[in-house]
Amino acid sequence: MAGKVIPATERGWQGVEIEGYRPGSPDVGVERHTIVGGRKGAPGEPGPGMELRYFELQPGAASRYEKHEHEHYVIVKRGLGHAVVGEQVTEIGPNDVIYVGPLTTHQFLNRGDEPFGFYCFVDACRDFSQQPTEEDLARLAASPAAAIAKPFAVPPPTRR
Amino acid sequence: MAGKVIPATERGWQGVEIEGYRPGSPDVGVERHTIVGGRKGAPGEPGPGMELRYFELQPGAASRYEKHEHEHYVIVKRGLGHAVVGEQVTEIGPNDVIYVGPLTTHQFLNRGDEPFGFYCFVDACRDFSQQPTEEDLARLAASPAAAIAKPFAVPPPTRR
Repeated sequence: MAGKVIPATERGWQGVEIEGYRPGSPDVGVERHTIVGGRKGAPGEPGPGMELRYFELQPGAASRYEKHEHEHYVIVKRGLGHAVVGEQVTEIGPNDVIYVGPLTTHQFLNRGDEPFGFYCFVDACRDFSQQPTEEDLARLAASPAAAIAKPFAVPPPTRR
Repeated sequence: MAGKVIPATERGWQGVEIEGYRPGSPDVGVERHTIVGGRKGAPGEPGPGMELRYFELQPGAASRYEKHEHEHYVIVKRGLGHAVVGEQVTEIGPNDVIYVGPLTTHQFLNRGDEPFGFYCFVDACRDFSQQPTEEDLARLAASPAAAIAKPFAVPPPTRR
């Protein structure tokens, strides 16, 4: 593909469907907008090499507490949130950037009264999310992030 | 690296130096903020696999008219611009997203009276920019983008 412009609209982006957090999952108050690209099985497959998504969390909602090999590059677009990255928790807001390295447990939570939305860049060819281990959960419980994180807010994916 | 939060400041991001468009280049009215990552020679080198930059163009300023194998994923943060992608030109503004595919000539230009700023996401391990060929310039000249593009606004890089 030579390239394309995807204009912003009032609620998202032109031609981009607003989906739930994950197909087949229960409603957890999270919207997903896949703006560019999509998951690939191998780097040689056609299509963009990376994927740009936008997630919007309703007040009280959270992303899945998880980890994986692939990296996240997050830019906050609107609202107020918490970023749990490893055992650190940080208040985040518009234009803050968050890098999540390989196999680092992480979660994004809305801490405001308005929707909290962020862009998230990932490799198109990436591994699937892993549930935290008992060790991960014990480390979380012993850390300052324990007061904020909701490790069971979003159930594991039911299908891939 | 497990991960990090890079908080936004009034003029950029905490701990991120505001640079010119390219080291050793003349001032072309373009700021560069390298928020996460940096260029790598090989995928196995340490550091993030991708690089997130923010460019801010003063009124009248433009990015280099160029092409390369690596893809661009652009999100407009502020201001009004034009995106020249191949022979297409599009008016762009806040939250619009632009994908530039491999070897597609492209340029971003400020079309407003305020700074025009955009995030640009690239692979850390990527090829260098190529000057447009005579054929590229002839195609541009014969297209609607000719009225907008400034193919010689930014000189080729002087060092890499």
